[in-house]
Amino acid sequence: MSLLENYPINEISVGQSATYSRTLTHTDIILFAACSGDVNPVHLDKDYASTTPFGEPIGHGMWTGSLVSAAIAMRLPGPGSVYRSQSLNFKHPVKPGDTVTITLRVSEIKEKIKLVTLECEAHNQDGKLIAKGVAEVIAPAQKQRLKIGVLPDISIG
Amino acid sequence: MSLLENYPINEISVGQSATYSRTLTHTDIILFAACSGDVNPVHLDKDYASTTPFGEPIGHGMWTGSLVSAAIAMRLPGPGSVYRSQSLNFKHPVKPGDTVTITLRVSEIKEKIKLVTLECEAHNQDGKLIAKGVAEVIAPAQKQRLKIGVLPDISIG
Repeated sequence: MSLLENYPINEISVGQSATYSRTLTHTDIILFAACSGDVNPVHLDKDYASTTPFGEPIGHGMWTGSLVSAAIAMRLPGPGSVYRSQSLNFKHPVKPGDTVTITLRVSEIKEKIKLVTLECEAHNQDGKLIAKGVAEVIAPAQKQRLKIGVLPDISIG
Repeated sequence: MSLLENYPINEISVGQSATYSRTLTHTDIILFAACSGDVNPVHLDKDYASTTPFGEPIGHGMWTGSLVSAAIAMRLPGPGSVYRSQSLNFKHPVKPGDTVTITLRVSEIKEKIKLVTLECEAHNQDGKLIAKGVAEVIAPAQKQRLKIGVLPDISIG
C-alpha cells in the first residue's frame, strides 16, 4: 500500500525542495476538459489545432497549474497543507507526450503562522521552462502518514 | 451545433465582464485527481475527510483555478486567447454540490501588445468568495466562431 507522508512546519527549512513529474496524455486532456468544462477545440480538435500556431492539440495551461498544486499536496509540504495562493506565468505550451517536472523550493517561512512560500517552476523534458510562479501554503502542524486515495477505473469512448 | 465565439481585441473594453458557472460533482473530483495525479485523501476518502476540519471530501483548490481558465478560454476573450499569467488567492473550500460562478472583469488593456488584464472572482451559490485573482491574456486579433470540441463518453468504476 502506498503511503503519503508530509513535512510538518518543524521539518521545513528555507532551500528545501521537491519535484513531481507527469507526462501529458490525450486522456489527461479529455479528463481536464471534462471536469473544468473547457472544451476549447485547440485542446480537443486535431484539424482545428493544425490551423493554429501550435500545429497540434496542446494541453490546457491550467493543467500545468494542477501539477503544481499536486506537487504541493503530495510532496511538499504534502497532506494537511492549506493552499493560500498561487501565481503562475505561462511561458511555453505543453503537448501530449511531454513530461512536465514541477520543482518546488522553499523561499520563506513565517513560523508563527506556519506560512511557507514556495518558488514553483515547471520544465519539460528538454529543460524548457513551461511556467513559473509562487505559492503560499499553511504547512501542517503534525506529521501525517496517509493511505493514498484510490481512484476507480476510468474508461473513455 | 454549439458555437464558441470570441471577443477580439477591438471588441474588448475596460469594465466588460463575463461569467461562467459549474457545479462540482464527485465525478469532477475523480477526473481532476486522475489527470493531475493529486490523489490526496482529503478529496477522495470520506472516512479520512471526516477527520479533517472540512468534515467531508472537498474539491481540489486548483479545480476552481481550472474554472477561471475555462471562463477565459470559453467566454472572455474566448478562443484564440493566449494565457500569460494567473494569480489566485484561495479563500474558502468547495464541496460536491456547490455551484461556483466565475466572474471576469476587464481592468486594463494594453492595445499595442493586445494584453488584457482581468480581475477574476469565484463565488459559491451562497455568494461566499471562494477565490480571487488576476489574469493576463493576449486577446485574439481576429473574430472566430468555432465548433465546440466534443468529448467522448467517460465512464467511471
